[in-house]
Amino acid sequence: MASVLPASNKSMKSDRNTNVGKKFVHVQNPYLDLMDEDILYHFALGTKTHNLPVMFGDVKFVCVGGSSNRMKAFALRMHKELGCEGDGEEMKDICAGTDRFCMYKTGPVLSISHGMGVPSISVMLHELIKLLYHAQCCDVTIFRIGTSGGIGIEPGSVVITDTAVDSFFKPRFEQVIMDSIVTRSTELDRDLAEELFTCSKDFPHFPTLIGHTMCTDDFYEGQGRLDGALCSYSREKKLDYLKRAYKAGVRNIEMECTVFAAICGRCGIKAGVVCVTLLNRLEGDQITTPHDVLVEYQQRPQLLIATFIKQQLGLCRTPPPAPASPERTLQC
Amino acid sequence: MASVLPASNKSMKSDRNTNVGKKFVHVQNPYLDLMDEDILYHFALGTKTHNLPVMFGDVKFVCVGGSSNRMKAFALRMHKELGCEGDGEEMKDICAGTDRFCMYKTGPVLSISHGMGVPSISVMLHELIKLLYHAQCCDVTIFRIGTSGGIGIEPGSVVITDTAVDSFFKPRFEQVIMDSIVTRSTELDRDLAEELFTCSKDFPHFPTLIGHTMCTDDFYEGQGRLDGALCSYSREKKLDYLKRAYKAGVRNIEMECTVFAAICGRCGIKAGVVCVTLLNRLEGDQITTPHDVLVEYQQRPQLLIATFIKQQLGLCRTPPPAPASPERTLQC
Repeated sequence: MASVLPASNKSMKSDRNTNVGKKFVHVQNPYLDLMDEDILYHFALGTKTHNLPVMFGDVKFVCVGGSSNRMKAFALRMHKELGCEGDGEEMKDICAGTDRFCMYKTGPVLSISHGMGVPSISVMLHELIKLLYHAQCCDVTIFRIGTSGGIGIEPGSVVITDTAVDSFFKPRFEQVIMDSIVTRSTELDRDLAEELFTCSKDFPHFPTLIGHTMCTDDFYEGQGRLDGALCSYSREKKLDYLKRAYKAGVRNIEMECTVFAAICGRCGIKAGVVCVTLLNRLEGDQITTPHDVLVEYQQRPQLLIATFIKQQLGLCRTPPPAPASPERTLQC
Repeated sequence: MASVLPASNKSMKSDRNTNVGKKFVHVQNPYLDLMDEDILYHFALGTKTHNLPVMFGDVKFVCVGGSSNRMKAFALRMHKELGCEGDGEEMKDICAGTDRFCMYKTGPVLSISHGMGVPSISVMLHELIKLLYHAQCCDVTIFRIGTSGGIGIEPGSVVITDTAVDSFFKPRFEQVIMDSIVTRSTELDRDLAEELFTCSKDFPHFPTLIGHTMCTDDFYEGQGRLDGALCSYSREKKLDYLKRAYKAGVRNIEMECTVFAAICGRCGIKAGVVCVTLLNRLEGDQITTPHDVLVEYQQRPQLLIATFIKQQLGLCRTPPPAPASPERTLQC
């Protein structure tokens, strides 16, 4: 799949502006085009060592999630759903040269892990967006499929995020740039959220809803858990906080959505967040659900996104109202 | 190694206070002892499913680092250095039930990965400290061995952190607890840093120094890199920031040390941070050093910590001035 380039592949960028009407992935960094080479260190990929346009130029959907096992499972699911040859077991981790992230590609679908928390997904997103830029990708949609804690909803529910909010229930991401703080918008694509919700009606065996998702920088104290190594507040204070979050429209809590929305938004990539809830935080803090039930829960966002992608590609029985590129030929 | 407990192992805690003079790992959470069971979700371990005192009661040293491959390599190194039987290849990942973190044990040494960034290491530390608490561990020292960007020092230099500082060069960690912010101390053990520096004199083939380490929440904009997907500042502004950091005593930048110092400090665990620098940020942003050289660099903190642990255990030719427990018998 990979191929080594004998020289810089900068000349390949020349036709970027000839594709009128296409929405190319863009970066917001005037220095990037001045670089002779760009090493995507945490992917173990680079512009001089890999032919990124050939490897990734056809990517239209990127799915990211915290766990490497889950993202491999999603890639295998897409491989099967898209009708690619073989059982997918021969699928290689494109980032095998590093253990920071894993990456799999099936046709126009890229599946990547991002670890836990804002800093980890932020590293991944910078390098992913540079990769898509170098590869001259256009009309890309990116999904985060994850796990979360629910507030006031049944465990196993799938939440499609309409608004990503911080610990203060505000739709913002505070980016520290050296020693200054810049506040960024965390807007996500509302139409995409609605389309995903429509798609979820194909799966009546689990509840799906649209709601706000809160992003925290900590799983224990940050989310008001009573079961961490440190806890300096009361059960009453915890419940008061979670109830206020619910009242503000928050239906689930995870640890990546604000920076995901902020970075994708700035680079012109349509973005959606779909997480399953593993527990109802108003009922407890520990994840006591049996392993096999948790495994099934974690497949729900995958099932929804895989079906949505198939609809967009015109591969479902019920095609979407306006498929992105119905004439596309898949190359698995 | 693991064993399933037929009932709660709470009774095992009864002799905790009879060991006068030992410094037990403690938690700061009054709710924890009220729980019938504690599931360490991101380790796939629990107090009802695993006999934590039997599995971990003899742990005296914990080494943590971002990369799972590196922490496995460190465990294999310790296995060999401690003279344990076999080549270590049969060593099992204790957290094999999850892909969030990996964990290996060799005698009294635990080796654990923590991913990238403050939120990720924070999840790991909460569960690690609860594990050490449930296992009734005492006199534990914890090291973070990592990679970092250097400022004004030769690539490959090893920095022993005396003070962990934030992006504003302040020795503090701002913990968001629900919707309030608490500032915590990031003090590390100064004596430990000095002892590590003394130990480093055994390795004249690489430079080692003591300095401040800066922790950021972002690898690109947070550290003033010019090669991310987003960059809204000039090269001059970047260099000005890095030079001000140098003037404030900062010699390297990574993404975990402040919360590591803050949490370990609050739980009474002696903690040290030892990172190798992969580049000099005053010279550039990209990590262009050849792979084999980077691999050798990454072994330097491991070599230093492994030697220090051996000294503490009385297993070196040059014993330390005051070994912790010279009479200890290792059980690999």
